[in-house]
Amino acid sequence: MSSFAPKPAEGVATHSTSIWVEFTTLAAETKAVNLGQGFPDSPAPKFVTDILQNISSQPELTAAHQYTRGYGHPMLVDILSKIYSHFYGVKVDPINEVLVTVGAYLSLYYAFLGWINKGDEVLIIEPAYDCYYPQVKFAGGVPVPVVMKIAEGATSSSEFKIDFANLESKINEKTKMLVINNPHNPTGKLFSRQELEKLAEIAKKHKLIVIADEVYEFHVWNRQDMIRFASLPGMYEQTISIGSAGKAFSVTGWKIGWAVGPKNLLEPLKAIHQNCVFTCSSPTQMAIAEAFRTDWPKFLEDPENSYLATGLSKELRGKRDKLAKMLEQGNFRPIIPDAGYFMLADYSHLKDALKLATDKDPDDFVFSRWLCREKKLAVIPPSAFYSKRESKLENSNMIRLCYFKKNETLEAAEKILQKLSHQ
Amino acid sequence: MSSFAPKPAEGVATHSTSIWVEFTTLAAETKAVNLGQGFPDSPAPKFVTDILQNISSQPELTAAHQYTRGYGHPMLVDILSKIYSHFYGVKVDPINEVLVTVGAYLSLYYAFLGWINKGDEVLIIEPAYDCYYPQVKFAGGVPVPVVMKIAEGATSSSEFKIDFANLESKINEKTKMLVINNPHNPTGKLFSRQELEKLAEIAKKHKLIVIADEVYEFHVWNRQDMIRFASLPGMYEQTISIGSAGKAFSVTGWKIGWAVGPKNLLEPLKAIHQNCVFTCSSPTQMAIAEAFRTDWPKFLEDPENSYLATGLSKELRGKRDKLAKMLEQGNFRPIIPDAGYFMLADYSHLKDALKLATDKDPDDFVFSRWLCREKKLAVIPPSAFYSKRESKLENSNMIRLCYFKKNETLEAAEKILQKLSHQ
Ligand SMILES: Cc1ncc(COP(=O)(O)O)c(C=O)c1O
Ligand SMILES: Cc1ncc(COP(=O)(O)O)c(C=O)c1O
Repeated sequence: MSSFAPKPAEGVATHSTSIWVEFTTLAAETKAVNLGQGFPDSPAPKFVTDILQNISSQPELTAAHQYTRGYGHPMLVDILSKIYSHFYGVKVDPINEVLVTVGAYLSLYYAFLGWINKGDEVLIIEPAYDCYYPQVKFAGGVPVPVVMKIAEGATSSSEFKIDFANLESKINEKTKMLVINNPHNPTGKLFSRQELEKLAEIAKKHKLIVIADEVYEFHVWNRQDMIRFASLPGMYEQTISIGSAGKAFSVTGWKIGWAVGPKNLLEPLKAIHQNCVFTCSSPTQMAIAEAFRTDWPKFLEDPENSYLATGLSKELRGKRDKLAKMLEQGNFRPIIPDAGYFMLADYSHLKDALKLATDKDPDDFVFSRWLCREKKLAVIPPSAFYSKRESKLENSNMIRLCYFKKNETLEAAEKILQKLSHQ
Repeated sequence: MSSFAPKPAEGVATHSTSIWVEFTTLAAETKAVNLGQGFPDSPAPKFVTDILQNISSQPELTAAHQYTRGYGHPMLVDILSKIYSHFYGVKVDPINEVLVTVGAYLSLYYAFLGWINKGDEVLIIEPAYDCYYPQVKFAGGVPVPVVMKIAEGATSSSEFKIDFANLESKINEKTKMLVINNPHNPTGKLFSRQELEKLAEIAKKHKLIVIADEVYEFHVWNRQDMIRFASLPGMYEQTISIGSAGKAFSVTGWKIGWAVGPKNLLEPLKAIHQNCVFTCSSPTQMAIAEAFRTDWPKFLEDPENSYLATGLSKELRGKRDKLAKMLEQGNFRPIIPDAGYFMLADYSHLKDALKLATDKDPDDFVFSRWLCREKKLAVIPPSAFYSKRESKLENSNMIRLCYFKKNETLEAAEKILQKLSHQ
């Protein structure tokens, strides 16, 4: 054996296999129908890939193939500033108030690392997208979960509710940030104006920085229903809003995202960016800029022909309805989402018939493994979206499914679900 | 004024305007001929952009447009493992020993953040690519510069020499890492086997992790002369080797890079990657994989037709010779590089005639600003590549030029240089 065995930096926790790795591997090994991972398996919108094709046909285009501006391609920050100026009702400066990153993921990382000092507390509404927790910890912060409750027998994601008194009771002088994910992964909840105003009131009162993860902002059935947090009175100056082109244009693999907010809030993110990736991919930034430039005028003037206003949500809504029906036929109780591309479904009705062995993992892990191994349907156990063991156990009779899948995939899932109903 | 003024994380230094920002802005404002920034302004190789074009013509290709494997697209890690197995003479495992990142830049960031604890010292050979220093500091480490000297009147980059006794004298129990950049930016030096063996001996003796930044590994006139550090006896297990597709295929804007090394050395990098970007751009990864798959067999069997073996270096060498000649005509003393795409040139001969006002900045800053403002030629002052003020001042009678520019650009520069000789 080698005598060369240096010790890694203390901050780097040992690598626990993430649930994505386990369930993706299992899905691949079992060749299951995959409704687990959060990306479309249907073709990307052709008008978007066509733009990248066009850019790639011009090797002489240095703006597309060579280093671009570090904080964001000029074309991309320009159109993003126009879009968000419209949505937020403030003048968003393209140079100082937009930062382009490698997906929303990197914006989140920067936001936590840039603002959290050791011991600072961060309120996270759970269930929560599973990167917030480790990112906050990595930054030296203390994630403080605030668990939403859903009424027994509920059938709509809107019935996931925040207990505001409980939330406020967790705030102390160390509380620095509040993370809001709207539309919400994994529930598909779209927060109402009332709920958001209540959160704004709390953020104002306690001077919290709000991280508004709005990557599914265009995945709503009626675009008027999407209330962007930074558009609430006084909130722009306290909010770092985070978006994703991968989500907006259904090209998750392109990994272009952004943070938008007032100059002072973005400055620490930019300082880290300078040392971290320095600049993001030029061809995909340029293609996304062009995609927005194509679609945005339609969004405003001709929404019926806009992908972001109508095309995306129409496609999604049909798939949502289809999956909901299939789940009902399969003896699940779907929690119908108001946005996004995920759906939760309760499997309590099936559970008793199954008599699955329990083990140290929450019930939904056991069920999801069984569903994948025995029935060849891959899903994600939502208890992965809670940090505390008791919350995991309390919320482990559901599965999360992604319905942004092509018809063949949904039909293959339907066959499996139909057989399940005879279990 | 708002009462909302939170304090950023302590680790985030205030944002000093980097020299790139100053000189890029100045070049743009003055509409100067730009030999400053390190990227080709000539077209990217068509066989590479053609591949991206082909991928973009297939919106249904989920492997290209949706999330791919976090640690690297299966196709890309596969071909990289083949390439580096060949170069290093060890079996590089694609799954555990390759990590794809957003440019070499992000690999460097991960390597420092993943391995450095507060107070750990990192040896940096100067002049040095300007991201090492802030990245090491950001990780809590102490950068320890080791300045290479060049003989008076030298005309070859090989005359930049490390004083090994001096280097070794800086090692103590806190010294954890050594950063080697070969081929070297900004000098264009290609380290000899002897020099590298000496460094390996020191690394072995003091159990240092070696960061081998070899992004210009294909930018050499004879590919046999490029000695990859990990290929030296016993060095693979101590080395994190870092490469860049942006450099290899002259598409700097694509920002695909990688770290290669033994599993245990990569693990902390992967742990951070999971929280930082999680996964990199799929379409460009796939295109780079395909570009390597196209070129690599030729590199081995038919080098005359290989971009990486011959095409790139042939193009570069012609441009190097052209720029060197132009500089001589302009009364500079060029330091002829053996690799890379940068050249240093001494302007002492011009200096006396110029009688530029001195100020608090090193002489080469003053000269470079003058050259850009008055003569419309943009270059980079190499004192930016030294960390200590005395080293900056000692080494401030040169400019750095990038010669990977199309002929029109080089000819425009030639006109300026010709006029300068009459100064
Ligand atoms: C709520 C939420 N935030 C952020 C992300 C990351 O987005 P990106 O792919 O742009 O990094 C995801 C991806 O699934 C998500 O669901
Ligand atoms: C020595 C060196 N290392 C790393 C990099 C960064 O490479 P990338 O663009 O792949 O991040 C550069 C870019 O100029 C460089 O010169």
